[in-house]
Amino acid sequence: MTIIGIVGGGQLGRMLALAAYPLGARVAFLDPAPDAPMSYLAQQITGAYDDELALDMLAQVSDVVTYEFENVPVTSAERIAQHVRVYPPPAALGVSQDRVEEKSFFRALEIPTPQFVEIDSLWDLEAGVAQLGLPAVLKTRRLCYDGKGQFVLRRPDQLENAFRALPNTRLILEPFVLFDRELSILAVRGADGDSACYPLVENHHREGILRKSIAPAPDIAPQLQDLAQDYVRRVLDALGYVGVLAIELFQVRDQLLANEIAPRVHNSGHWTIEGAATSQFENHARAILGLPLGSADARFHSVMLNFIGALPDTSALLQIPDARLHLYDKAPRAGRKLGHVTLVANDAQTLLERADRAARIISLEHTTFSR
Amino acid sequence: MTIIGIVGGGQLGRMLALAAYPLGARVAFLDPAPDAPMSYLAQQITGAYDDELALDMLAQVSDVVTYEFENVPVTSAERIAQHVRVYPPPAALGVSQDRVEEKSFFRALEIPTPQFVEIDSLWDLEAGVAQLGLPAVLKTRRLCYDGKGQFVLRRPDQLENAFRALPNTRLILEPFVLFDRELSILAVRGADGDSACYPLVENHHREGILRKSIAPAPDIAPQLQDLAQDYVRRVLDALGYVGVLAIELFQVRDQLLANEIAPRVHNSGHWTIEGAATSQFENHARAILGLPLGSADARFHSVMLNFIGALPDTSALLQIPDARLHLYDKAPRAGRKLGHVTLVANDAQTLLERADRAARIISLEHTTFSR
Repeated sequence: MTIIGIVGGGQLGRMLALAAYPLGARVAFLDPAPDAPMSYLAQQITGAYDDELALDMLAQVSDVVTYEFENVPVTSAERIAQHVRVYPPPAALGVSQDRVEEKSFFRALEIPTPQFVEIDSLWDLEAGVAQLGLPAVLKTRRLCYDGKGQFVLRRPDQLENAFRALPNTRLILEPFVLFDRELSILAVRGADGDSACYPLVENHHREGILRKSIAPAPDIAPQLQDLAQDYVRRVLDALGYVGVLAIELFQVRDQLLANEIAPRVHNSGHWTIEGAATSQFENHARAILGLPLGSADARFHSVMLNFIGALPDTSALLQIPDARLHLYDKAPRAGRKLGHVTLVANDAQTLLERADRAARIISLEHTTFSR
Repeated sequence: MTIIGIVGGGQLGRMLALAAYPLGARVAFLDPAPDAPMSYLAQQITGAYDDELALDMLAQVSDVVTYEFENVPVTSAERIAQHVRVYPPPAALGVSQDRVEEKSFFRALEIPTPQFVEIDSLWDLEAGVAQLGLPAVLKTRRLCYDGKGQFVLRRPDQLENAFRALPNTRLILEPFVLFDRELSILAVRGADGDSACYPLVENHHREGILRKSIAPAPDIAPQLQDLAQDYVRRVLDALGYVGVLAIELFQVRDQLLANEIAPRVHNSGHWTIEGAATSQFENHARAILGLPLGSADARFHSVMLNFIGALPDTSALLQIPDARLHLYDKAPRAGRKLGHVTLVANDAQTLLERADRAARIISLEHTTFSR
């Protein structure tokens, strides 16, 4: 019996476990919270992500270890890797945890990415704004996701307040990219180098949090899909990657700018559970278990809607044909991802009607799917 | 948080739990074996199925209780039902546990069923054979499934040995039905009386154990599907049923003879995980949780192949396009169901090629799918 160890016990790990069980694996995980989303359905080691005893326990009980969020300390992943295989490789964590390293990595692979300036002082910031112009976005280099730790600078008088408000001084300044839309590309790679790419997904954020994904993204020219697959394969191969990886992209006309890497299963891939031939979770599990990868082709038109902060009327949602519910067993809290629903249909028009109906139930009134 | 209690921790409960988690439920179960298929993915109460303390614990922690095999003692189900809702209703267990009651129940609902004679003595058996003729099948009335506890009688001199070999004397004699094929119909009913029927499935047994199911069953006239749905709805309504129920049927030309009821999710419904709009497991969970039922329509042509006694080369299976693996975390043992694979395809010809390839890997050499 193969035991998969997961660092982190959130919803991504939960859905990964649910996909790993049918493959015959057992699942252990490390999470400091005794009521993590995985707590009731896998074997928990309760401890901090830098607790050496807990890390060693996880390494000891596991045949292969993975992680379900990218802010796992690299030293923790490396410690585990001394005892047992760790997939994706810990180096992928390092790249994704620092926005300057991440963008430098894209550049080294000749993948277009927004311009950026490293900021370590207010003086750097003034020079950076002079270089990139306004509006611009000031972000912490590390540990900032879901919209935390960033400011949009619109006027010169905002620089000092923004600089002082951010929690540390290792920052990055980027131009405010006037993109047409946000996309993501997910791909999976096995230890043997075999890989599979999912179709591009269109993502809609609000307050820095993903609200909905449309998959496959509508109106994608084949060349754009090819371009995205080329980029993600460069990343996978450069990292000697094993597992699922996501790249968040800005589309600007027929160009793609790489914004971020997530070295893990990704919220914008949840639609794959129903909408693709093989889900991102199953393919991640297959990759790290050394099993053949499954097809990443779309089977249906899909829309995924997140439940943020509060749960909707789930009975009403389940009355929509082909609506699939995914709850994470988390207590409601503002800004927290509590679950999602995926709508699928064989044709885009039926899908949009179902998604509109679901959006009204979730109170995503700002959302309209009727283009 | 709703907690589903399951009596039994086998593969059916395991797949039910995997379907219940995304609906936001937690799962507890009762099983005497500390290494049951559910042991690593749900909260176990370890105890016998007639252990009153264990039954009371399960009732106490659960909001609704169900069962995953039909040989749960009726008294145990009734004990739990004094404290908490039990779905399906315990009366359904009673009907399914005794072949004479089961067939009398079919007759009362005017559902055709093979003839039968109650046998309590060797004298009864001789009289029964005189009435029904040979060949005939002698079975225990209770607790006999997967081909155990039955004899096919072909010659008069076999009667006494068969009678003495069976483990008790409460028996039933049935004619040896010369059926064209074995089918099953699965349906789900909610507490509000709403119901949904899956398409008829064609089943192939060997040594009394299900080996493969083809879904939807090929060459089914619409009238035959309607007939099966009419029968299963009579059963559901008569029992005030909540959850998934299966009826095993013999097809004889354009007639259906009801053979057995399974008041639970059923091996011949495993294909629904991939092949139907909503799996039998999700629909059972939805029904007992009071959620709206999902569509029971087939999405693909499907073949399900069981792994009996030994595991096949799972990597080889996963190289077949759209093959889906389901392992149960059970130690190999002769005659034991250890897992299954489901093949799906959009057209019957592609499916048959994939199923043939899978059957060769599983060493079902006797099996040919090319009709």
